[in-house]
Order: sequence, then structure tokens, then C-alpha cells
Amino acid sequence: MKLQNDLLLKTALGEKTQRPPIWLMRQAGRILPQYRALRSKLSGFKELVETPHLAAEVTIQPVDELGVDAAIMFSDILVIPESMGLPYQLVEKKGPFFPRTIMNKADIDALIDGKEAANELAYVYDAIRLIKQELNGRVPLIGFAGAPWTLLSYMVEGSGSKTFSKARRLLYSDPEMAHQLLTKITTSTIAYLKNQIAAGVDIVQVFDSWAGVLPGDMYQKFGLPYIEMICEAINEVPVIVFAKDAWFAMDELCALDCNVVGLDWHMEPTAFRAKYGASQVVQGNLDPTILYADHSVIKQRTIDMLNRFGGHQIVNLGHGVYPDTPLDGVKCFVDTVKEYEFIV
Amino acid sequence: MKLQNDLLLKTALGEKTQRPPIWLMRQAGRILPQYRALRSKLSGFKELVETPHLAAEVTIQPVDELGVDAAIMFSDILVIPESMGLPYQLVEKKGPFFPRTIMNKADIDALIDGKEAANELAYVYDAIRLIKQELNGRVPLIGFAGAPWTLLSYMVEGSGSKTFSKARRLLYSDPEMAHQLLTKITTSTIAYLKNQIAAGVDIVQVFDSWAGVLPGDMYQKFGLPYIEMICEAINEVPVIVFAKDAWFAMDELCALDCNVVGLDWHMEPTAFRAKYGASQVVQGNLDPTILYADHSVIKQRTIDMLNRFGGHQIVNLGHGVYPDTPLDGVKCFVDTVKEYEFIV
Repeated sequence: MKLQNDLLLKTALGEKTQRPPIWLMRQAGRILPQYRALRSKLSGFKELVETPHLAAEVTIQPVDELGVDAAIMFSDILVIPESMGLPYQLVEKKGPFFPRTIMNKADIDALIDGKEAANELAYVYDAIRLIKQELNGRVPLIGFAGAPWTLLSYMVEGSGSKTFSKARRLLYSDPEMAHQLLTKITTSTIAYLKNQIAAGVDIVQVFDSWAGVLPGDMYQKFGLPYIEMICEAINEVPVIVFAKDAWFAMDELCALDCNVVGLDWHMEPTAFRAKYGASQVVQGNLDPTILYADHSVIKQRTIDMLNRFGGHQIVNLGHGVYPDTPLDGVKCFVDTVKEYEFIV
Repeated sequence: MKLQNDLLLKTALGEKTQRPPIWLMRQAGRILPQYRALRSKLSGFKELVETPHLAAEVTIQPVDELGVDAAIMFSDILVIPESMGLPYQLVEKKGPFFPRTIMNKADIDALIDGKEAANELAYVYDAIRLIKQELNGRVPLIGFAGAPWTLLSYMVEGSGSKTFSKARRLLYSDPEMAHQLLTKITTSTIAYLKNQIAAGVDIVQVFDSWAGVLPGDMYQKFGLPYIEMICEAINEVPVIVFAKDAWFAMDELCALDCNVVGLDWHMEPTAFRAKYGASQVVQGNLDPTILYADHSVIKQRTIDMLNRFGGHQIVNLGHGVYPDTPLDGVKCFVDTVKEYEFIV
């Protein structure tokens, strides 16, 4: 089916458009009253992730309510560890928790991987097919996966962490074991993204949420090579790579065989363009806390960012939208971008 | 009293020494069995901070046990908000908590500041005098304070946070109020550091623990100018500035009127030297998780870091030592540095 709004795909491919496209990381979530209403009726977050028609419903909510230029499938990056044999829980107000973690080589040997793991996630592909049907070509659908380093972090640490010190220490103490685990995660992730594409997603994003906890030399060894394998394997649709806080690897990220590099809110647009050129397609990067300010501030800051990037930008925040962001602040951001026009 | 070990002060002043000095952020703490034994007998962390002979005892423990080249006074950056009229609690396993926070201009007007606030902290100066007496010139004593932006973060947020979104949003929503609060914190901090120096500290460090949550342009406006005021006001002893994760402000940090710039573990030494020159004195920056690895890895990584910085370095970790770090790993790090010799 031909897309009625192809701003996101055109921009990702480096083509010029009349205005930049916009979507928000975590747009399907607590900022929307519709989401909160639905969520309050359910037993937990996982029910939402694992029930295709519910995942489809919350995926489409922000397209209706905010008028964003893309939908992103409602899911969680931790479905991959679970599909490999390491189940996760989502503890209210505490975040992800793995009852079992990866402690030794035998734990890694016991994991399934590749297509076998990816094929466990039928509920994701069912949701994608439903979403595509219900979107009916209005906007493109973004698929996603966690980057291997980020998934390893959770699988070793067992939960979120300020420092992910257990995961980091594994890289120094037993690099071979780390590479073995990263390899299994990578083959699973590639198969997973290919299944998502087969089910209908139009573009995919790889999230390396914990890139920023590693020293640069360790990220070169344990982070980037696995993202690179994913980028090289995915040729069917455009790929966005967002490695949060990985300023120290920006040269390598921009050199990846991917279409779009996500930027967090620390990257100043003018400095970025001076270093990486006008044509590198970026995604980001407004500070999410700007959306709590007066609308005049939101408008001025948004337009300033757009001017400084000067095009080739998929507009987004520099991180996921915070759950308590006022809805009218989010709408002001979206509307400002939609009213913006490139001077041709 | 003349110091028997002046490696730290000489290095801070840019002078050459036979080997680099070493100390660890949070060296007085849970890594030491002596500390844990003493701490288990007390009602809470604040009793330790506020009782001079106990603060003195734990300050000196790492000098005895680890043989580090400096002591750092045992205290907390949150004593300044408290001295200004905003008491804090330290909740076991949860971290700092402020029962009252700064919500509006009236709350700021109600705060005392400058010398009046700093003079509330007699227990700190008493501890310093005791420590100096007990150290008896063995090693220098480091004093410290939190940077104004970091203190504002806690005073507005009320506790630690992954995002400090309340504090960040204040900067956009009411910049004038933010500047008013930062100014009061700064005058208090300057008076506090001057009192510490009068009581006997040999060098001071300013910790901007939450520098890294701000976008670069906001840090230029709300972070750096206040650190600059502190640096300009303190001329009696050398000043170390450690703005964690503030890679985006490294040019400005290196241009500050301070003696030493602290680096977190993301800054690759060779790249740093290439950009900022061989003579900029640095402090840091080993990844704390290296200390969990085999001693051969600790040694190799430490020597590699020393070689890459090539001198003008106060050796430290890139952040505070993690509480569960094995003591023999810490000792291996310290001993490796103490055995290192510069090739003259």
C-alpha cells in the first residue's frame, strides 16, 4: 500500500521534503489520556505488549491524538532476551527485572538464538500486521530492537542500574564470554528485525540506551561492531541508530551503514553540522524538559533547533518523552514542526 | 606544617614529579572494612558527617589502609543546602531526600546565603582541624563542595533522579528564578570553601555531578558561569573542577581559572592530549569497573592510561569507587601507580 505521508521515509533516504517529519520516542504511552485509560484496565504492561489488538490500539493513539508523521510499534526491547530464554518482568515504578541472569558460559550456551529465538515473538508480528491494516497507509510504521550491548546489560545486571557495573565488569573480566553473548543477541536481533519487516514495518530503529555507560575504547569493541552487523544485515528498509550519550563514538556512528543517526539533547546542532556535514540525516534532539515550558519557549526552541540543523532531520526529542509531560506542550512541539517550511 | 608527601600539590601546580599522585573519589567509604565496622555502630550517615572525630577517623582510614597520596575530608555536598535552610535526609539504599524543596521565589528569598550560611557548618571546620592534626603532614587534605547547578538540582528535585527533569524544566520555565537560586548557592559555596581553607585544607575540588544532564547551551548559561565565579574567588589553594559527563563543555572547562580538570572514564587520554595539549593538568579517569578484574588487567589498563596521559595527571577513577569493589583490586590500582616512574 502506498503511504499517504512519506515525509519520514523520504527524509531517512536523504531526499528533500517541504517540511521535516516528526515523531516522539515513547509517544505511545502515559502522556496520552487514551493510553492511561486503557492501561488502568489491564493487569500489567506485559499484557499490553503481548496482546496484538491492544498493542495496535496504543500504537495508533498518538497518530490520532498528536498528528505525528509516524507510528512506532508498541513493544519493549526486552522481548528479545525473553525469546532467547531469559524471561523478564516489569515491576511497577521499579522497571525491568530478570529473575534469572547470565552468570556463566553455561547460561549462554542454554540460550536459543537467531531465527529460532525470533520466531518465538509471533505476538509482535501479529501486532504489526494489525497496525498496518488499521493505519491503512496514513503514516509509516517504525519497528525497533535494542542494541546488543544494551540487551547484554540487562541480561547480566538483571535490572536497570545507574552504573550497570556488573555488565561493565564482565567486559574486562571475561571478554570472550561477553562476545559470545553479544553474538547470540545479534543473530536473534537480525532475525527479529527481518521478521518485523516481513510483517510490514517501513523502517527500523536500533536503540542503544546504555551506550553511554562504556568508555570509548570498550564501546568500540563491545558496542559498535554488533550494531554494524545489524546495519549490514538489514537492507530491506531504512535503519535509524540511536546510541544515547555515545558522543565519544559519533565519528563511527556517522560512518555506519545506516540511514539516520539519532542524537541525544547534548549534541549542539551547529557543532554537529560543522563536524559531520549538512547531509548526514539525523534524528532528534530537543531536550524533553522544554515541553514543560510556556508555548512561546517551546516554539522558539523548536524553530531554533530546526534552523540550526538546516534540514535532513527527523524531528524528535533527545530521549523518550517524559511520562508527566503536559499534552498541550507535546502538541505545541508537533504543531510547530508541522507549520515549519524549508526555504527552497 | 610542611607536607611529607607533596606529589598531589606539585602536580596540581603543573610541576614535574617522579611519579603521579593517586587518590580515589569515595576512598573513605564502604570499600574499607574499617569504615563498615564503624558505620554499623552508628544511627546513620549524617551522624558520621556531623561528628568531627568520626569524620576525621574515616577520612584517615584510606591513607593508612591504601597508602593514597591524599586524604579527602569525609562529608557530603548537601551540607550547603542544609546550611542555607533546606535540611536533607539520607535514606538508606535510596539516597538523599529533601522534605522541603524550592518551589517558588519566596522559597529562595527565605534561604540564607554567603558567610551566614557557611558559618553554620562549624562541624566541618572542626573535622578539618582534627584531620590536619592527626595526619600530621603525611599527605595533603582535599576539601570540596558541590557545584551550584548540582546543588540546585537536588534543592528543586528533592532527591536523586535519573533525569532531574524538574530541575531542568525550571531553567526553561523560569530562568530568572534559577539564576537567583544559583547566585545564592554560589556565594554560600565560596564562603564555605574559604572557611575550609582557613581551617586547613590544602586543595579543593568542585563536584558537578549532574553537569551531564544539561544540553550544552544550558550548561553554558546555568552551569559554567557559577563554577567560574568560584574559581575566580578561590586563590589561596589549587582548585580541581570535576564536571561529570560534561564532554560538551570541555573547551570551557579547560579554559577555567582552575588548576586541574577532572575527567570521567569516557574521555580517551590520547584524544584529550591531542586536543588540549600535554600540559593541562587532569585528574582521572580509569573506569571503576576495571577494579573488579584480574590484577593483570588492572595493571595493564592502569599503565596504559598513565602512558597515554604522559604526566600532568592526578590519578583517580573516572567516578567514585563503587562500594562493592574488592579491596585488593583497589590496592592493586594504587600500588601500580606508586610503582610507576616517569622516564625523565
